Amino acid sequence: MDLPAVSPPDVDARRAAVARYAELDAPTAGLGKLAEIGVWLAATQGTCPPRPPARPRVIVLAGDHGVAAANVSVHAAGTTSAQVEAVREATAPVAVLAPVAGTSVRVVDIALDTDAPEGTAARYRVRRGSGRIDTEDALTVEEVERAVKVGRDLADEEVDAGADLLVPGSLGVGATTAAATLVAALTGTEPVAVIGRGSGVDDNGWMRKAAVVRDALRRARPHGRDPLTLLRIVGGADLAALTGFCIQAALRRTPVLIDGLAVGAAALLADSIAPGSRAWWQVAQRSPEPAMAVVVQHLDLQPLLELDIRLGDGTGAAAVVPLLVMAARLLAEVGTISVPEPEPVADTAAAAPE
Amino acid sequence: MDLPAVSPPDVDARRAAVARYAELDAPTAGLGKLAEIGVWLAATQGTCPPRPPARPRVIVLAGDHGVAAANVSVHAAGTTSAQVEAVREATAPVAVLAPVAGTSVRVVDIALDTDAPEGTAARYRVRRGSGRIDTEDALTVEEVERAVKVGRDLADEEVDAGADLLVPGSLGVGATTAAATLVAALTGTEPVAVIGRGSGVDDNGWMRKAAVVRDALRRARPHGRDPLTLLRIVGGADLAALTGFCIQAALRRTPVLIDGLAVGAAALLADSIAPGSRAWWQVAQRSPEPAMAVVVQHLDLQPLLELDIRLGDGTGAAAVVPLLVMAARLLAEVGTISVPEPEPVADTAAAAPE
Repeated sequence: MDLPAVSPPDVDARRAAVARYAELDAPTAGLGKLAEIGVWLAATQGTCPPRPPARPRVIVLAGDHGVAAANVSVHAAGTTSAQVEAVREATAPVAVLAPVAGTSVRVVDIALDTDAPEGTAARYRVRRGSGRIDTEDALTVEEVERAVKVGRDLADEEVDAGADLLVPGSLGVGATTAAATLVAALTGTEPVAVIGRGSGVDDNGWMRKAAVVRDALRRARPHGRDPLTLLRIVGGADLAALTGFCIQAALRRTPVLIDGLAVGAAALLADSIAPGSRAWWQVAQRSPEPAMAVVVQHLDLQPLLELDIRLGDGTGAAAVVPLLVMAARLLAEVGTISVPEPEPVADTAAAAPE
Repeated sequence: MDLPAVSPPDVDARRAAVARYAELDAPTAGLGKLAEIGVWLAATQGTCPPRPPARPRVIVLAGDHGVAAANVSVHAAGTTSAQVEAVREATAPVAVLAPVAGTSVRVVDIALDTDAPEGTAARYRVRRGSGRIDTEDALTVEEVERAVKVGRDLADEEVDAGADLLVPGSLGVGATTAAATLVAALTGTEPVAVIGRGSGVDDNGWMRKAAVVRDALRRARPHGRDPLTLLRIVGGADLAALTGFCIQAALRRTPVLIDGLAVGAAALLADSIAPGSRAWWQVAQRSPEPAMAVVVQHLDLQPLLELDIRLGDGTGAAAVVPLLVMAARLLAEVGTISVPEPEPVADTAAAAPE
């Protein structure tokens, strides 16, 4: 894939933020995770103190997956479009949280298994559903290219429109099955170590999912670990678009909150395609999905919080957005009155009150 | 102490919240910690879905401690009043975060080592500084009574004014030394297991702190584990007021976010004085102070987040407030469209798209 190199966040702004924390009228290391977040924000914005994110934006990419027919989800195959409607009607978790977090939400149909959308929405549709990965390829070579480009275009659109923090999300029945397969294939992890409860399946559902991932991995293995090839054989159009989105956000030097296994798998592929992208991301929260632990380890990004949110639609990342605003404001607004050094004990013992 | 019994939060509302989560159009357990918070909010409000906290209020109680003269803090003895000013001028961390969290902040002088305040503020001043606990009692019997009453009065004032979520905070150079001593004395914990870096002291500061706690505990031990006696001998006026505040909030059936060691120690004493109070509280976040781990264990309250914020002024709790708003809104606004059960695999395999 012909891409410019990802440039790193600003080292000077990072250093300035670290130095500023040392000057703040607050105990050393007293701000914990908020300090880590502030340093990262300063580096990604190239300025210290960083600005509180003013236009954080959640972009949910939606697509159906052929493997949903294997009952790998608590949601029936074909119900992704109802989930998309719930986001549009603001009854889905991510849409409920968004206003509290000061974000807006956009949901884009990449590959729903419904009649083709009309008007401008049709621009982003790559195909109708993605192939059933345990028995057939998810996409063609051309579809992979198109989906990655759609994702990159979406990131460009959002950054051009002023977004200063991007939160990709995913809606797709069966998406965590494909995502777990991608993670296992790219990292050489055993299937059993990446398969989780996804949408909340029971033991039988877990076993069906394991069988699908095993079969899909058998199909993927002869083709090596090339990210674009994996997206074609065992991925999906939405996952390819998320990969392009993560790459382009890094190329556009825009910070991203990663959350959920579908986005996590796409991020892992994106950093493999465009090395260094990970420096532009934070993992928002610890997910109970085992494959997400593999992603976190391979990207070397510690989750900011431990919310144990299992949804893939960006809910966990939206929940974290207020902490980014707080971190930025702390760096900008906390006083920098110098702290007097404590004097030696002997000199002050007499100064005990009363 | 003559107190009515603390009544428990509403069991029916708690059950209704658990049942509602099961109905939500979101995967089982998919909301992680946000679901736990929502259930607790419903129980404390006695209604389901719970209302998003509309008037969360941070109340910072300030007092100087004689032990500050032993250089147990990175802040010099007598600088608490400057910290109080920083809260009033909105350059202190808790005051910077408060507007992002939708809270207002009030700071009250309980026992600063400054000239007595004038006007209405004088009502809350219990004494000028608290005694140096390694060599003398912190308070008299009458001062303990007065301080606990001041704390209870403050909680009453805030609840009467409409506060529906209380966040007590503490400002006081040396306060964590007294708080660690209280925790060790009440729980029978060895000094070395409760002494942390507090405001961020170095190894020498840690050793000075250890010596002070050891000496203070030696003074406290003959008097047993009575919370009010401990407040008198090794506590402080601000800590006694925080204890009264936590008790009264529970008596007024108002939820409280606990954060920081000073507040944590006061909460431990409060639940000992008024058993069952803990059901009205959540510990906002994991603090790196070892004594706070003892508090969390004894109160059996798992911290909601792991922010590692070390400040005692309510910063860590203020950071968590948006998550409470989110949890309440999720319960109220997420759709409850019933999720279709997946059909058996054999029946749907033919339905794989394409």
